[in-house]
Amino acid sequence: MSTPLHQLESRMAGDGLDALLVTDPKHVYYLTGFASNPHERFLGLLLIRGEEPALIVPALDAEAAHAASSVGNIVTHADTDDPYALLAARLGTFRGRLGIEKEQLTLARYERLQAAAPGFDAADIGPALRAMRAVKTPEEVSRMRRAAELVEEVLRGGLAKLAPGTTEVDLVAELEYLMKKLGAEGPSFDTMVLSGPNTALPHGVPGSRVIQPGDLLMFDLGVFAEGYASDITRTFAVGEIDGKLRDIYGAVLAANEAGIAASLAGAAYGSVDRAARQVIEEAGYGPYFMHRVGHGLGMDTHEYPSLHGMNEDRIGEGNVFTVEPGIYVPGIGGVRIEDEVFIENGRGVTLTSFPKELTALTLG
Amino acid sequence: MSTPLHQLESRMAGDGLDALLVTDPKHVYYLTGFASNPHERFLGLLLIRGEEPALIVPALDAEAAHAASSVGNIVTHADTDDPYALLAARLGTFRGRLGIEKEQLTLARYERLQAAAPGFDAADIGPALRAMRAVKTPEEVSRMRRAAELVEEVLRGGLAKLAPGTTEVDLVAELEYLMKKLGAEGPSFDTMVLSGPNTALPHGVPGSRVIQPGDLLMFDLGVFAEGYASDITRTFAVGEIDGKLRDIYGAVLAANEAGIAASLAGAAYGSVDRAARQVIEEAGYGPYFMHRVGHGLGMDTHEYPSLHGMNEDRIGEGNVFTVEPGIYVPGIGGVRIEDEVFIENGRGVTLTSFPKELTALTLG
Repeated sequence: MSTPLHQLESRMAGDGLDALLVTDPKHVYYLTGFASNPHERFLGLLLIRGEEPALIVPALDAEAAHAASSVGNIVTHADTDDPYALLAARLGTFRGRLGIEKEQLTLARYERLQAAAPGFDAADIGPALRAMRAVKTPEEVSRMRRAAELVEEVLRGGLAKLAPGTTEVDLVAELEYLMKKLGAEGPSFDTMVLSGPNTALPHGVPGSRVIQPGDLLMFDLGVFAEGYASDITRTFAVGEIDGKLRDIYGAVLAANEAGIAASLAGAAYGSVDRAARQVIEEAGYGPYFMHRVGHGLGMDTHEYPSLHGMNEDRIGEGNVFTVEPGIYVPGIGGVRIEDEVFIENGRGVTLTSFPKELTALTLG
Repeated sequence: MSTPLHQLESRMAGDGLDALLVTDPKHVYYLTGFASNPHERFLGLLLIRGEEPALIVPALDAEAAHAASSVGNIVTHADTDDPYALLAARLGTFRGRLGIEKEQLTLARYERLQAAAPGFDAADIGPALRAMRAVKTPEEVSRMRRAAELVEEVLRGGLAKLAPGTTEVDLVAELEYLMKKLGAEGPSFDTMVLSGPNTALPHGVPGSRVIQPGDLLMFDLGVFAEGYASDITRTFAVGEIDGKLRDIYGAVLAANEAGIAASLAGAAYGSVDRAARQVIEEAGYGPYFMHRVGHGLGMDTHEYPSLHGMNEDRIGEGNVFTVEPGIYVPGIGGVRIEDEVFIENGRGVTLTSFPKELTALTLG
């Protein structure tokens, strides 16, 4: 198997790069397996063509880096050292194109780097990393499967806590408690529980509303586990719900399934959005589906690609993205159903498996 | 009262700045009262000398910005607009010194800004904002008091859950659950609960160790509330503890009190560290107190100033920082006691008030 680090090294020549400096902790994890939060301290992976890669870490992380990193050449700096002096020692006489992450590197760090190694031309490696990250390795897919399983266990546990008097924020607290108990690193975004008319707000904020019979009850949640995000939405009935709401549910479920069926390697990302949107338009709810159908998922909860109707980039083997159509009718209510889709053998398979048929919950 | 925005405007001339662009969401909140997470979208406060300040926000945040911002001139951009075109329209012909946040602005954004407004010289406003943020306004102190009260209520609730079989991670989950239930925005850092020999690790990670009679039990936790952090550490006995551990506790408590007493306007920050350290050295535990005594606290959990022994910057009215000496004896155990200190009328008063005398907890 070619690791992401090998892939990146092997494309340096073609990209016209003589060296790379990767400082985003997420990208260091992606390339070396060493996860850390260096806060204000310097962390960097330095690749100079023809030399052994070097991982530069704060001294207090040395042991953890040796244990986790696939790069064996660990260079440490103490709090009293200047990490840019280390870079100057290695890059000070360097002349050529140095790849950096322009979307992550701060101007202050860039200026320090320029002072330490004034001879380089900077090139952005963000697009290369973005493209690589969109194609998940088998190891990444395993982690994403576990993150998805974990969030589904959290959702099951949260549903069991529903009782007379339960509010939206009560359920948020329960769900986030379960995430920790079950071993997640934490939520991958602000956990959303909305009920009744609040479900009509695509970006509503959970509040103290008491959940009532006749409500729609929407959960949108995810966790980080081993550095990878999950993201799922399910909407339930509380007891008996109005026929109009059942109709909306049916349209969203059909749109979700149409979007998954359209997730085929070689098709445009936009075709997933268009397939789901067509179902909702034909059901007469077109104006009430006012967001894109999904987004890439991985080390970030929202990453490349964006699944909007105009995106003509092509779906590829190993992609993971969400398919999450919704219908939001002000004053009435809303439904969203979201799955994670992985492209395997050319077709979309879901990493999420929580049942999707309309389910009526009882209050205690 | 002079608001932070007025202070910043009034120092522009003296700092030789003709305009400012503030894009860190935390600084926008600090200066305008508008809190938001724009994710990848553009948010910016633009101040050109002699012109009305403009707050540039994503269109979907327009309503929230109008409701919360002290700056009335709200300029919106839709997802299909280029926010840098907006900046070009206002700054394209600008010649002069433009203040930016070099520690926060990414190189990619800086390059887009340069392309939109090629005539400026960049200056860093980070030091000015850092100095302003170190002097809390009465409104900020009120928020910090509430964040401290909230975390103490969380700690009380967590202690009530201690029972036979309780593990460190059980308590972490309980504490973070209570944070949400009681209305915090979330933890201000990874909640730490360590027991028995694990307390000897200043940066230990909570695990599945069952809490036992004879243990020391250390809690280090904080919350964000209304954008401001709290941070407290307390260490307890579980039942009867060894005389050696009681001795350590006494030395740390005396050091904590000495550090608070040394927190006087006009003294060096380093003198707080030295006062606490002297008590621990005299008790014979000098080598086991291997970290600085504290750090500034506010919108960030760790911010300027750093309270290490070499810091000769001067304590000032309105500062808030932690005083958190500790003794960590490998194989035996550790104690840390941390308070938040606010400099009021020249003296340090604590924003945290949880009792500090050695308390023995019982297991259920």
